[in-house]
Amino acid sequence: MQGTVEIEIINTGSELMLGFVLNTHQQWLCRQLADAGYTVARQTAVPDTGLDIQQTVREALARADLLIVTGGLGPTSDDLTRDLIAALLGRKLHTDPAILAHLGDFFAQRGRPMPAQTQVQAQIPEGALVLPNPNGTAPGLAMEVSPNPFRAGGKTSWLIMLPGPPRELRPMFTDQVLPLLRQKLPLTSAFICRTIRTTGIGESIVEEKIAAQLQPLTAAGLELGYCAHYGEVDVRLVARGANAEKLAAEGEAIIRDRLGSHIFGTQDDQLNATVVRLLTERKETLALAESCTGGFVANRITDVPGASAVFLGGMVTYSNEVKQKLLGVRPETLAQHGAVSEATAREMAEGARTRLGADYAIAITGIAGPTGGTESKPVGTVFIALATTRHTIVLNPINRYDRPTFKQITCQQALELLRRTLLKH
Amino acid sequence: MQGTVEIEIINTGSELMLGFVLNTHQQWLCRQLADAGYTVARQTAVPDTGLDIQQTVREALARADLLIVTGGLGPTSDDLTRDLIAALLGRKLHTDPAILAHLGDFFAQRGRPMPAQTQVQAQIPEGALVLPNPNGTAPGLAMEVSPNPFRAGGKTSWLIMLPGPPRELRPMFTDQVLPLLRQKLPLTSAFICRTIRTTGIGESIVEEKIAAQLQPLTAAGLELGYCAHYGEVDVRLVARGANAEKLAAEGEAIIRDRLGSHIFGTQDDQLNATVVRLLTERKETLALAESCTGGFVANRITDVPGASAVFLGGMVTYSNEVKQKLLGVRPETLAQHGAVSEATAREMAEGARTRLGADYAIAITGIAGPTGGTESKPVGTVFIALATTRHTIVLNPINRYDRPTFKQITCQQALELLRRTLLKH
Repeated sequence: MQGTVEIEIINTGSELMLGFVLNTHQQWLCRQLADAGYTVARQTAVPDTGLDIQQTVREALARADLLIVTGGLGPTSDDLTRDLIAALLGRKLHTDPAILAHLGDFFAQRGRPMPAQTQVQAQIPEGALVLPNPNGTAPGLAMEVSPNPFRAGGKTSWLIMLPGPPRELRPMFTDQVLPLLRQKLPLTSAFICRTIRTTGIGESIVEEKIAAQLQPLTAAGLELGYCAHYGEVDVRLVARGANAEKLAAEGEAIIRDRLGSHIFGTQDDQLNATVVRLLTERKETLALAESCTGGFVANRITDVPGASAVFLGGMVTYSNEVKQKLLGVRPETLAQHGAVSEATAREMAEGARTRLGADYAIAITGIAGPTGGTESKPVGTVFIALATTRHTIVLNPINRYDRPTFKQITCQQALELLRRTLLKH
Repeated sequence: MQGTVEIEIINTGSELMLGFVLNTHQQWLCRQLADAGYTVARQTAVPDTGLDIQQTVREALARADLLIVTGGLGPTSDDLTRDLIAALLGRKLHTDPAILAHLGDFFAQRGRPMPAQTQVQAQIPEGALVLPNPNGTAPGLAMEVSPNPFRAGGKTSWLIMLPGPPRELRPMFTDQVLPLLRQKLPLTSAFICRTIRTTGIGESIVEEKIAAQLQPLTAAGLELGYCAHYGEVDVRLVARGANAEKLAAEGEAIIRDRLGSHIFGTQDDQLNATVVRLLTERKETLALAESCTGGFVANRITDVPGASAVFLGGMVTYSNEVKQKLLGVRPETLAQHGAVSEATAREMAEGARTRLGADYAIAITGIAGPTGGTESKPVGTVFIALATTRHTIVLNPINRYDRPTFKQITCQQALELLRRTLLKH
């Protein structure tokens, strides 16, 4: 596309291909690039073997203005990236004295002898820029491939090699690669990426509500994406070019108008943080009584820094006996309605609220599965109660999912019930 | 390579390329395949756009015996995978009545109206096998591409499309794709991949303890890998060919001998499940009192199906007042030693144990950060107490990490303390 920078990423590592390691580089690099206005056209992961690395680098250099290769720069026998790429491009390796000195310092500072094998990391291909590594031993390398033997017309590509460990790669990318990118491959066209986060509404319904009204904007070049996960649907707006800001702003206005209070945030906002923020603003407090979610909601709330100002405490009450002891649920209620019932949920919430002296208490009781269901109360049955100073509200969704998803979705519903209640007060 | 099956994975999704979502499919699929003896040669991620998907599918079909494509099978307008692949292979789409009926049931069971757009998911390319989706709406699809127009000699490839949501993709892969793969693309050469999971010991110590003794086996072709994450170190053994079984078994025997009780499991075993199993075998019960981990431990325990048989309940006691009310911690203890102290941890654990009538109770109090540290009790200070019928043990690690890592590591230490105590009884 005219005016855009074609970027590809290659992640090397047999541990990736065996599924022992999660490839966090892809998300992190893509996100940093998107935030800086660049998008990644393709990402590839290959094993450490020579043939695979050379072949994918060759293919990517035929397409990309910028190719970022991660991993394989370390000192061990399976670290081959530097050598393979130098060979592919016909560049000799030479020892860089500054890197050699850095390696010596690195080990001296840690009071450890420098293994001889470490010195291979001071080898750099001719013409490469060294990206110093203050957090490790292997430096990054940046090479201008010009003329590019693999690309139509010999068009120049930049090839950047970064070390595998995230705590080395990340600062190197932010401090050295992004400035280089802005200088060597500046954006000639604006790019805006905005995410609007919704909950309590399904993916198809979200699209039904907004797609028709957004049609003139999508026809004018606004790209629309949907991403559903655990009771949330993200709507993503991407716009490019001179009109990008206007298109994105108009799109967001329509979405806000159509989806209203289903929207709980933008970009990386999380529902748990939204709820903690609303409670903090109102100087109100929360208590929890969880049965089937088993502490999941408490954990999500306490994931938010500063939660201690609003979250008084929670109880995970799996057994009937503990429901009675900790929450004061009456034995008659349990006998008459069962542990998974509206009446029990209500007493759990009211018990938690009064016993801990909170403004709000959420109680959750249900059947997570895989076993424990009955005909009248199948697996997935949940009662979510919210007790306030004024009343107690009870929801009764059927969340028929595997156990971890059940917890996620149920938690989401509980937090959303609290969010909506807080917005009304 | 002769006798091997060439496998590639393509993950589609603009949200991947913009860095909004972590690509967990790659690791999960690669791991499942490796455990079944198959290895993945290449993984590629591309945006949802038509050109990119068709181009990468075309390239992969030129190389792979099996191509797995994830994502883009849903109901919204950016779900294009099914249509694009059908078009690329020149196959017409037709509506499958069984899928249509499943879609109707899916919404009926959840008491929601079926949006019209949902029906596109019942469209399948001619000749495709349908992989039913009991956990969602979009079915998977398996196609034998024969003759394969993109591959030398028209050699057959299998192309499998899986829905994006992990809770749909995973059971579909395990229950339907793996059996199909074993039938259609059987292995002709042995491949063994075995993971031995340890805890309570650092990565370099693990290597020091085992590497020298394993040297003859690695010289004979056994591949050894280490992977450290959240207080655990995995040792990975990979062996190929006729001798694979023998090499792996001998390697495992040496590792078991050298690492002893640091080993808590193999393959995908989890420490939480190990602890629940040990408690279940002993018919003993557990209670929890968490402050700084905020329900994380309770959540991990209740992630294990069947945990309700051994886990009586837990309390998340953030404030001093709630520590007194729910656990009976004495005000004098809090005043004299503070909430983060050995004495408080001890009273929390003993209070939880006696109040809930459990055989064991774990209590955790500490400073997760990022704020709240003092000179004598810096951020990361934790007291982990385990109360049993005989005594109370208290650990005092310093876990100086970001908040989520702090919770993970502290939980791991608490579960490991319980595991070691259970093994001694």
